[in-house]
Amino acid sequence: MDALARQVVYQVFPEAFGGLEGVTEHLDHLAGLGVTTVYLTPIVPAPTDHRYDATDLSAVDPALGGEPALERLLAGLHGRGMHLVLDLVLNHVSDRHPWFRAALAGDPAYRGFFTFLPDGRYQCWKGFRGMPELDLAEGAVLDRLYRGPGSVVERWLDLGVDGLRFDVAQDVGLAVAEDLAARVRERWPRCLLIGEVFGYGGGWCRGFHGTMNYYHQNALLSWLNGEIGAVQANRAVADVREGWGLDGALRSWNMLSSHDTPRLRSALADAGGIDLAQLAQMTLPGVPLVYYGEEVGMEGGADPDNRRPMVWDPARWDRGRLAWTRKLIALRRGSPELMSGDVKVLGDRLPGNALVFLRYTEQPGEAALVVVNAASDPLRAKLLIPYPHWPDGVPLRDALGQAGEVTVRTSSVALDLAPRSGAVYRAVEPLETYRYFKPRNRADA
Amino acid sequence: MDALARQVVYQVFPEAFGGLEGVTEHLDHLAGLGVTTVYLTPIVPAPTDHRYDATDLSAVDPALGGEPALERLLAGLHGRGMHLVLDLVLNHVSDRHPWFRAALAGDPAYRGFFTFLPDGRYQCWKGFRGMPELDLAEGAVLDRLYRGPGSVVERWLDLGVDGLRFDVAQDVGLAVAEDLAARVRERWPRCLLIGEVFGYGGGWCRGFHGTMNYYHQNALLSWLNGEIGAVQANRAVADVREGWGLDGALRSWNMLSSHDTPRLRSALADAGGIDLAQLAQMTLPGVPLVYYGEEVGMEGGADPDNRRPMVWDPARWDRGRLAWTRKLIALRRGSPELMSGDVKVLGDRLPGNALVFLRYTEQPGEAALVVVNAASDPLRAKLLIPYPHWPDGVPLRDALGQAGEVTVRTSSVALDLAPRSGAVYRAVEPLETYRYFKPRNRADA
Repeated sequence: MDALARQVVYQVFPEAFGGLEGVTEHLDHLAGLGVTTVYLTPIVPAPTDHRYDATDLSAVDPALGGEPALERLLAGLHGRGMHLVLDLVLNHVSDRHPWFRAALAGDPAYRGFFTFLPDGRYQCWKGFRGMPELDLAEGAVLDRLYRGPGSVVERWLDLGVDGLRFDVAQDVGLAVAEDLAARVRERWPRCLLIGEVFGYGGGWCRGFHGTMNYYHQNALLSWLNGEIGAVQANRAVADVREGWGLDGALRSWNMLSSHDTPRLRSALADAGGIDLAQLAQMTLPGVPLVYYGEEVGMEGGADPDNRRPMVWDPARWDRGRLAWTRKLIALRRGSPELMSGDVKVLGDRLPGNALVFLRYTEQPGEAALVVVNAASDPLRAKLLIPYPHWPDGVPLRDALGQAGEVTVRTSSVALDLAPRSGAVYRAVEPLETYRYFKPRNRADA
Repeated sequence: MDALARQVVYQVFPEAFGGLEGVTEHLDHLAGLGVTTVYLTPIVPAPTDHRYDATDLSAVDPALGGEPALERLLAGLHGRGMHLVLDLVLNHVSDRHPWFRAALAGDPAYRGFFTFLPDGRYQCWKGFRGMPELDLAEGAVLDRLYRGPGSVVERWLDLGVDGLRFDVAQDVGLAVAEDLAARVRERWPRCLLIGEVFGYGGGWCRGFHGTMNYYHQNALLSWLNGEIGAVQANRAVADVREGWGLDGALRSWNMLSSHDTPRLRSALADAGGIDLAQLAQMTLPGVPLVYYGEEVGMEGGADPDNRRPMVWDPARWDRGRLAWTRKLIALRRGSPELMSGDVKVLGDRLPGNALVFLRYTEQPGEAALVVVNAASDPLRAKLLIPYPHWPDGVPLRDALGQAGEVTVRTSSVALDLAPRSGAVYRAVEPLETYRYFKPRNRADA
């Protein structure tokens, strides 16, 4: 199975953990949650809190503990079999970055790193003057970023970092992404490359392994908030499968919140809706990403309110949220079909207001029917399932223990779910003298 | 055109015809119906009525007339240009079969034919002890079934049988099906191979030519019974086209009832619904299969009530049913697009409750728009038709003579169907001095 699809990511805004030592201190919390990978927003020196405007792309800010703290974090993670993904900005730097200072001063070695207008102004990210854009058509820039010896990318990967998340991938561009990916794969074949595409990312997995899947996020939250109907929500899942490709979809990150969006608790006020959102997150194609504190129900509106210090006092935790998050992560990590299976969307065929999809691998019977009923009515419906390996008579059991057992009848089931509830139906083999799933039926055997 | 897609199958439960002679006696009834192929459930000696538990896989039960009766039936069929398909069980035999007796007695030549548990129990189909499963991973078993000289398959095909229907294909497995199919095609290239997949059969046409399409059956009956909506019914047709592939879909068998399901008359109480079910059956991609007696409106619930003796007294026949069945079969057999055309599902785009699809070949104008309106309201809707060979202004006429003529306007028609009615629209060439369909426009020309 694809190791990159098997991960569960936990995103940390380093300041909120009191720096890198704070992350290392709390690795037991993450491991207990079932997390496999930590993704840190930038840790480089920068004039702002968010650090997307580096003054040095290759350094660890001493205020976060410096390089020794990063090495201790890496050791702690790798000792637990866990991984680290860093956030890398190739598109722009701080206007205080030495390259930009030199360019401004007219240094011919750096002038071409940026794009100046005749009036002295310069290209800068979304017009923010503090973030001048690097000219990625300039070979010397690419050499410094990832092509040459001692490049920024080489520096981090040689340190043992397991993956990189590339900021504003649409500004970086597909050609650079593909070139970079090809070079990285030569030397660090297991390195994960994720692009930040803030929306639909179809076509972007040619370079990156996957994207931060904000399209899934928008679909789920809009649906559970009643802004879009079930047809749109279901079709969005099909859009991802089609546009990202299976591997791209499986390796992309499904987050319900991040440092760039309000926290889940604040985006969806009602706890039942949050339960359903997390259920979808953990069962859809793609790697789930838990934004720090989401697992204990932290609140927070738009940036910077969503970057509050992590709450470590268990008395302030939502224990139900923590248990549900753990349960879903455990379910996912025990289910090959949820980690690496293909998806077939079915919810757009049903009346009512449900997200319904099948996840399945090539192994007969290794399949899960996920049903998320957002309606305040029960979901009672017969559903035909276009899947050839659930034979007539096979019982399906809800892995979450909420819905009752159903039996497959001629590739259909009679769904009966409570209002605002979900189920993850998987087949069970009820007999000792008969196998419903004969291993020789593998489609690729 | 694919000969395997041009068939109309009539399924006989031999006991219900008083044995094989009874089938031979009534071939005129079948030919008059428009049937091209007879499919017999097993005719081998067995302790049960259903005979899926053979005591000899290569013999004709004397109680059904023995081999001479089978030879007379074959002669009668072939003399009329008709075909015979037999039912073959590769997965299991009777616990009274000599192979199993020998295995039980510890005979090392047969012990490996079956799978025994340490406690003396053995693998048996769905846990039924009377049907021990053959171990199809055992080469010696495959030799006896289809690989070696004098195998079961060779025996029946050498006798002149035209096709085989394989019981419980999902237990037999895809690898065996493919191996068997490859060997059969070498020696009997025109032999039809159909797998019983009791539900969705996507992927199974790699070995078999087609399946018994219980997925279509479930979709049609569930829809006409109001258990699922039109979106699901329409999508199920698209599922089949996608999962079976065009050739697989065209060669698969579309039955509305069989020896394993309640009779159509009992599954759908109302005669109008039965009319619509048959209309869909005869126009969907796939070979229609008429279960004996269905054409005269026989009743019957679940097995064994659905296996009652055939009614031969015309006074007890539903004559309207017989006329409608004949009419639909004649329509199908006169329509290349219904027998061998591709399908484009359109009914999931309309409000209301209709199954709508286009069937079309590569020959410009050789197309039929099938509309089945299950609603108790009229279907009045404008429908855009993504088909390039019905030019603006061409009139379409309902081949069933029920709906009024419509005219194609910029690839759309204004549908107007009565409640609970259907239509099969085909183009007519109204002018002597102009051809709407120019043969040179064939897509493959």
